[in-house]
Amino acid sequence: MLSSAAVKIGLMGCGVVGSGVVKVILENGEHIAQRLGRPIVIKKVLELQPDRVIAAGLEASVVTDNYLELVNDPEIEIVVELMGGIEPARTFVLEALRQGKHVVTANKDLIALHGRELLETAQEKGRDFYFEASVGGGIPIISPLKQSLAANQVQEVMGIVNGTTNYILTKMAREGLPYQEVLQEAQSLGYAEADPTSDVEGYDAARKIAILASIAFGTRITFPDVYVEGITRISPLDLAYGKELGYALKLLAIAKEENGEIDVRVHPAFIPVNHPLASVNDVFNAVFVRGDFVGEVMHYGRGAGQRPTASAVVGDIMEVARNAQTGSSGRISCTCFEQKRVKPISEIMSRYYIRMMLKDRPGVLASIAGVFGNQEVSLASVLQKRTEGDMAELVFVTHQVQEGNLQDALKIIGGLSIVGSINNVVRVEGETD
Amino acid sequence: MLSSAAVKIGLMGCGVVGSGVVKVILENGEHIAQRLGRPIVIKKVLELQPDRVIAAGLEASVVTDNYLELVNDPEIEIVVELMGGIEPARTFVLEALRQGKHVVTANKDLIALHGRELLETAQEKGRDFYFEASVGGGIPIISPLKQSLAANQVQEVMGIVNGTTNYILTKMAREGLPYQEVLQEAQSLGYAEADPTSDVEGYDAARKIAILASIAFGTRITFPDVYVEGITRISPLDLAYGKELGYALKLLAIAKEENGEIDVRVHPAFIPVNHPLASVNDVFNAVFVRGDFVGEVMHYGRGAGQRPTASAVVGDIMEVARNAQTGSSGRISCTCFEQKRVKPISEIMSRYYIRMMLKDRPGVLASIAGVFGNQEVSLASVLQKRTEGDMAELVFVTHQVQEGNLQDALKIIGGLSIVGSINNVVRVEGETD
Repeated sequence: MLSSAAVKIGLMGCGVVGSGVVKVILENGEHIAQRLGRPIVIKKVLELQPDRVIAAGLEASVVTDNYLELVNDPEIEIVVELMGGIEPARTFVLEALRQGKHVVTANKDLIALHGRELLETAQEKGRDFYFEASVGGGIPIISPLKQSLAANQVQEVMGIVNGTTNYILTKMAREGLPYQEVLQEAQSLGYAEADPTSDVEGYDAARKIAILASIAFGTRITFPDVYVEGITRISPLDLAYGKELGYALKLLAIAKEENGEIDVRVHPAFIPVNHPLASVNDVFNAVFVRGDFVGEVMHYGRGAGQRPTASAVVGDIMEVARNAQTGSSGRISCTCFEQKRVKPISEIMSRYYIRMMLKDRPGVLASIAGVFGNQEVSLASVLQKRTEGDMAELVFVTHQVQEGNLQDALKIIGGLSIVGSINNVVRVEGETD
Repeated sequence: MLSSAAVKIGLMGCGVVGSGVVKVILENGEHIAQRLGRPIVIKKVLELQPDRVIAAGLEASVVTDNYLELVNDPEIEIVVELMGGIEPARTFVLEALRQGKHVVTANKDLIALHGRELLETAQEKGRDFYFEASVGGGIPIISPLKQSLAANQVQEVMGIVNGTTNYILTKMAREGLPYQEVLQEAQSLGYAEADPTSDVEGYDAARKIAILASIAFGTRITFPDVYVEGITRISPLDLAYGKELGYALKLLAIAKEENGEIDVRVHPAFIPVNHPLASVNDVFNAVFVRGDFVGEVMHYGRGAGQRPTASAVVGDIMEVARNAQTGSSGRISCTCFEQKRVKPISEIMSRYYIRMMLKDRPGVLASIAGVFGNQEVSLASVLQKRTEGDMAELVFVTHQVQEGNLQDALKIIGGLSIVGSINNVVRVEGETD
């Protein structure tokens, strides 16, 4: 039955995203009520700093420092968790679900680690657990994967899902500057945090691809399942050489299904400059999906920030409220129907860019090519770049090869006396052989 | 209550898209049943050419030439209309809704003209009427606008929603070929129809933007409300000059809301090369949305074709079946809550590119600039391109001006003896002044 009573929600956390959610609900209240048939009212806010809640435009009377006041309030239909981190968020969310609340969250750390427990608890209680904002900020991606694209068997999800690293790589590529210098600038501009580890080491992206892969392939993928490399070893030389080869370099979050097995990883990768992801620059995010019927689709937008993230959170609140209104809560619950094996990195297939310093003399290239050949690593191209004393810098690009074979070859090559150093190895994605 | 009985559907039309839908349901049947909790079964197909149905993989016994066998069959829950065109599709769909069927369709012509009647009938009967495939083929855009982005007040929707014209313009730009030559090649490749009018004159795009604008702005916009210009007057010169100015040329479908009024139109337009829509090439489509909280998002993919369109149709069938299963049919119905005025083209604001031949002698530029100035048309740049005898070709780019003022100025300029011809006028979008 449709009811015109307000949807009462409890907000956990009134930081950047939380106060954005308050803004959406206050500024667009009429618009939302029109679409939903009833207004959204924030009844309580769990927050240890009441001034944040007041600054966001709410009355001091809604603030509490006790989460039980939200989860035990019979009038609150939806708990919106925006505290971030694992604990106490996990305890609070589980308790909210057990008390019959629906939950909306933007907490990727929590879902990428405890998604199963949370979704199963929601399912047992017949409640909704929505998390569109956990990946890609305001970009609709989780809901399209579960709904409009649901008829497809997804073959591949590939995304630029971390704005900080995309900003750094874009700037390094445009201006030829080294990583450390750009990182410091990004920190001073507020695009990177004082401790940038989670972004630059790829952990943030890994959590997001774990969530997307779980939905796309119908199997539970958690954060520890994801192979991760960050961007700290990328040099302006790699960007320049890649450009000459027709590639852009991005920190890609990749998930593929092949023969019922999952390949899921985050690492810097070259993609052809005409690939749709190649022109996703600065802090923008995009998620590229390949399905067996839809072909290629890409969703692009601002993957972080107060307003875009709040947009996705309130979109979820509206959807959950609609379900509650029509008695259809739990209409789309956990979609992890199977348990598929996650391949170790040694089993994946990829193309590779390898930059190394070699003795600049006859026969050296033949030796290196011989080692690659013996390990079944087939080379697509070799370019000599610059010389330094008696050493020459060479860039090799391989065909599709198995990572294990490449690593074996590199181990052997690294031990040869004709080799000065293997300076970098970058996977090449987004093109067939 | 959840039921495990099959979802029985009736298909109207087994042409390109219809047989694509059959393929999805047959090939991905298990995948779909897992996600939906029950399988989809095609019980009847309305089709005058039974061989098409058999070729698609169904039994001859499901074919009928009488639409009443679908709409009066009590076992059929969902009627899927893929015949296209206005009649008899309109009569069949209305009758299906009246008989209590849910309807899924890809028919943009029908929705852009009779959307109100269809949505109101569905609402009266408490039935679903879904049409994701009517815009952008397989790209999820209607559902995200109604759901994930619903908290936003949309400010602008701008799309490349016709693959044929995007293919033609991309090829003209890349190869410097004239329109007629590229059109003929597109026709021989099957990218353009023998009668290309609906595509090249912008009517197809106009139907799609009418649908998107209605949803984005909550007001009914129909096909006749949309101002339309096609691509037939675009010359390789315009593309070359645009490129020098840093623009790509696209057939854009545009809808904006300003002060409660709607600006909705389809026409060729220059956009900055770094705009996300500028790199949408060949037959690809993309829809760019600007919302007050989410900022800019863009959805990109294959906007036509059997498999992508069928992907969207079956996604809708699954959604409608889920609603029926959970008793929440009609959970999102017509979103046209208001009636906003559509501005005539003379009232819109835009920047303009104007290419004209002028007498190549002193004082001419001053005269032209004077006319523009008198009509409040402020110029941003003037470039002299080439000379032909005693005439010179000039390209003017204006600041944001009102279209009515520009048209007045061009009327006066066209009558001056120093003017050979006004060769083309192209609006410039996607940048502020």
